[in-house]
Amino acid sequence: MILILELEAKILKEGQVFPGEILKVGSFLNQQIDVDFLMKMGAEIAGLYKDSGVTKILTVEASGIAVAFAAAAQMHVPMVFAKKHQSLNLSPDLLRSSVFSFTHKTTYDIVVSREYISPEDTILIVDDFLAKGNALIGLIDLVEQAGAKIAGAAIAIEKGFQDGGDLIRNRGIRVESLAVIDSMTDDTITFRH
Amino acid sequence: MILILELEAKILKEGQVFPGEILKVGSFLNQQIDVDFLMKMGAEIAGLYKDSGVTKILTVEASGIAVAFAAAAQMHVPMVFAKKHQSLNLSPDLLRSSVFSFTHKTTYDIVVSREYISPEDTILIVDDFLAKGNALIGLIDLVEQAGAKIAGAAIAIEKGFQDGGDLIRNRGIRVESLAVIDSMTDDTITFRH
Repeated sequence: MILILELEAKILKEGQVFPGEILKVGSFLNQQIDVDFLMKMGAEIAGLYKDSGVTKILTVEASGIAVAFAAAAQMHVPMVFAKKHQSLNLSPDLLRSSVFSFTHKTTYDIVVSREYISPEDTILIVDDFLAKGNALIGLIDLVEQAGAKIAGAAIAIEKGFQDGGDLIRNRGIRVESLAVIDSMTDDTITFRH
Repeated sequence: MILILELEAKILKEGQVFPGEILKVGSFLNQQIDVDFLMKMGAEIAGLYKDSGVTKILTVEASGIAVAFAAAAQMHVPMVFAKKHQSLNLSPDLLRSSVFSFTHKTTYDIVVSREYISPEDTILIVDDFLAKGNALIGLIDLVEQAGAKIAGAAIAIEKGFQDGGDLIRNRGIRVESLAVIDSMTDDTITFRH
């Protein structure tokens, strides 16, 4: 709980709101990484999923890697990151899903080598942001294609005013977001508690 | 030293050599990350640079992020990753350098917000591979543009048979590579000791 309040304080202090409901937290989560703080976020995630039999963490490049690494370090499991591809490499060795990016108004593929997610795995999906949920839905699709179990998702910051979180929770998938933003304007950010 | 031998053993066991002197270590360093092992590599890097007054670690997305994070976690300093751009955003707020990729035969830009590297910083550059050295030279360029000090570079795997390492050491910059490959064929990999 203390970590959550620290995270909210950091978002309020360092976050910048841009048009289009974009929140930039490049000073500690995205481009510059406050590694000691992310390790604490990783410990929080490890605590939330400690009884879920997680064997591996899955994220997508590039901004998900740091928080996923931190969670994996605290849980002592390997992590895998999906790559973003525009290519049409339809190798049967690859798990692949299409993701529409609302930020960039384009569709891209995310791919993972089939060898890195097996039916015996219980996967925790970790990402930095959850908004419309498209990236997360793509990652869930990869895990389902591999026939692995999904423990749930752990997200650093959820935009609670967009529908991705509800959409995925309504599918019966556990989603834990460390900070949930209820509303956001140029000068105020309100969190859900 | 034990870590180095472990790393060499992992490269021999899990590495795959492809035409064009490509070494794939996707099972523990690149796509799938053996996080506990990378934390040990991070500790080794922290030991090498413990007296260098490092204030921040710099890498480039995406495959450098994990090893840079591990080193930063062990040194308790923040890390920053440069982004790869094809765009022509010439914002004065960005540090920018051009990198030619021998693997992909294209030139791309790497960019970092100017606010994340200051003249007061002493930067340790961390990356997963060093071959021709182009990415590393680009990262050094960013640090020099920012007017910051360079403590040196720490690399997971150096292809010692390519000239990047010598090129940069000859500029007087300290380069520490955990594993240095002297030669590499389909069925043998020889390390420098």
